[in-house]
Amino acid sequence: MSSQSPQKSALHEKDGVPQPESISQASLAKVVRSRKVQPDASTLISGILKGDITALSRAITLVESTNPVHLEKANTVISACLPHANRSVRIGITGVPGVGKSTFIEAMGKYLTGLDKKVAVLAVDPSSTLSHGSILGDKTRMEELVKDPNAYIRPSASGETLGGVARKTRETIILCEAAGFDTIIIETVGVGQSETAVHSMVDFFLLLKIAGAGDELQGIKRGIMEMADAIVINKADGDNVAKAKLAKTEFNRALHLFPAKSSGWIPKVTTCSAYEKTGIDAVWQLISEYVALVKSNHYFEEKRKTQNQYWMMETIEAHLKQHFYHHPEIKTLLEQNKKAVQNDEISPFAAAMNLLDRYFK
Amino acid sequence: MSSQSPQKSALHEKDGVPQPESISQASLAKVVRSRKVQPDASTLISGILKGDITALSRAITLVESTNPVHLEKANTVISACLPHANRSVRIGITGVPGVGKSTFIEAMGKYLTGLDKKVAVLAVDPSSTLSHGSILGDKTRMEELVKDPNAYIRPSASGETLGGVARKTRETIILCEAAGFDTIIIETVGVGQSETAVHSMVDFFLLLKIAGAGDELQGIKRGIMEMADAIVINKADGDNVAKAKLAKTEFNRALHLFPAKSSGWIPKVTTCSAYEKTGIDAVWQLISEYVALVKSNHYFEEKRKTQNQYWMMETIEAHLKQHFYHHPEIKTLLEQNKKAVQNDEISPFAAAMNLLDRYFK
Repeated sequence: MSSQSPQKSALHEKDGVPQPESISQASLAKVVRSRKVQPDASTLISGILKGDITALSRAITLVESTNPVHLEKANTVISACLPHANRSVRIGITGVPGVGKSTFIEAMGKYLTGLDKKVAVLAVDPSSTLSHGSILGDKTRMEELVKDPNAYIRPSASGETLGGVARKTRETIILCEAAGFDTIIIETVGVGQSETAVHSMVDFFLLLKIAGAGDELQGIKRGIMEMADAIVINKADGDNVAKAKLAKTEFNRALHLFPAKSSGWIPKVTTCSAYEKTGIDAVWQLISEYVALVKSNHYFEEKRKTQNQYWMMETIEAHLKQHFYHHPEIKTLLEQNKKAVQNDEISPFAAAMNLLDRYFK
Repeated sequence: MSSQSPQKSALHEKDGVPQPESISQASLAKVVRSRKVQPDASTLISGILKGDITALSRAITLVESTNPVHLEKANTVISACLPHANRSVRIGITGVPGVGKSTFIEAMGKYLTGLDKKVAVLAVDPSSTLSHGSILGDKTRMEELVKDPNAYIRPSASGETLGGVARKTRETIILCEAAGFDTIIIETVGVGQSETAVHSMVDFFLLLKIAGAGDELQGIKRGIMEMADAIVINKADGDNVAKAKLAKTEFNRALHLFPAKSSGWIPKVTTCSAYEKTGIDAVWQLISEYVALVKSNHYFEEKRKTQNQYWMMETIEAHLKQHFYHHPEIKTLLEQNKKAVQNDEISPFAAAMNLLDRYFK
């Protein structure tokens, strides 16, 4: 329509001049293209094996994906990385919130990169979906380590189940090892089932504690103390030094009462101050002694083989259960039988057989 | 043939006179008949509810049978007994061989029948098939208790799997309770997985130890000390008294370092001599205090409900696994995938997925 139209209203506004693009269309297209063009598996593999962090991060993103196409690609990458993995020491670190895990891991990580080690820091925290990454989510808590070119920090994968998170972390370990990381630190919080999962994927399990503060009597889950290869009492600085030493004596005495470990290792207790960076060398000394012992008595390889088998079986069994409990008929029948068991109308075994008969029919 | 036969050989012997029957045929037929004529479910039920030991024993035999007809009858009996069960205290007792479990249980049992209690002693020992009943198999080890009309001793059921043995013991508890036994003692050996199973079917878990003898450092499985509601140091007699007292102090100190129990109970340590029958009253005092506490805070019922649910789920999951691992195709595929995992050709998760894909197809 021409602007010389005879019925021109007083309300008519002239068409505005189009705003100039604030971003260059050419640049935008390039970014979109590069995001869409995922490198293929072989590019990722060769990148990882050369120690390229971008390739590593992208492969981990595939491992964490829920897209079956991504997972298939992830499997290809992992299979190719497997022969180059396994040459590392895997250390699990746990402790209730407040014992200073992040500070400790940063001090430990910096100490290790100072020894020319390549350190990857991972986490297992199934709660991270809810809490938006309570541990390691905020990389700024490890300010120095995050800038270190020989360190790689990756927050916990999110996932609905611990099993899912654990799988992702296990496969991430393989990728990190293939990328040349020789020390893998896996952090977890001292509550819930995640300790057992982490314990089943590491060579050395370290329990971080602080003296006093009532920490001995609460917070930490039962059984964790017995899993520990070392108890490290952190915050042994200032007024706390004497208390930390006393705690060390007490824990040493307690550990003595535990049964011997099949590794042949007698768990040790030590103190440190992650904040003042003291005692970190002694912790590493301990871990090195442990590794030397278990490599000489072949427990090291045996344990890794056992762990691999454990994760294979664990994955199978988790899927079998999931399939059963997601069966539509089972769901309603389960509730009915649970109630009958609660009311002592039926024994737990008879209830189980009711459900199994239906499932396998 | 007549004996007057013309070709009578010199080697011919006269037919002997038939031996008289050493057992009366009539009596034999009666025994066979009575064995074949199993009392029906309702006879067993009314017998059990009247506290008849023969009916109880017969019902337990049905529970332990592998014959589906017997198991169906067992289920009927159990369902009828359930509303009359649950009114008891269930005590689990563990300890490595040599700590004097049998002597302790006998002393404890006699003490309790002296208090007008009715005591049933059961056992969970999946190894009993091989060792022909290593624990409780030989009732003569509890000579006095076995003669006590208010005590009932039943050796461990045999079975290929711990799950099977555990199911039988759980259902036996129900039958014993319905028969009026108000104190159920379940013995297990301090090795293997059977402690966890027993821990999941009792109200109170007691760890029996002896002072010195290196027992602190070996034999007992990891994690058991943390399960214990009480540690009882046995053989505190003669020269051992001082050592036992020292051990008590040490364990008390160690238990302090453990996290608090959700029951609100702080585990206790005490000494006794089952042989001299001293300190048994203190053990019972402890158990009574525990029961009073957990009944007042409702942990007692909660725990039993949780245990029922646990056993229902446990039975389901054991069957799911059994079905999977007995699948003929899975068996061979499993071996192949295990090998591939061992040789780092495939990740444990990829191997698991291979097997699951086949199973569900």
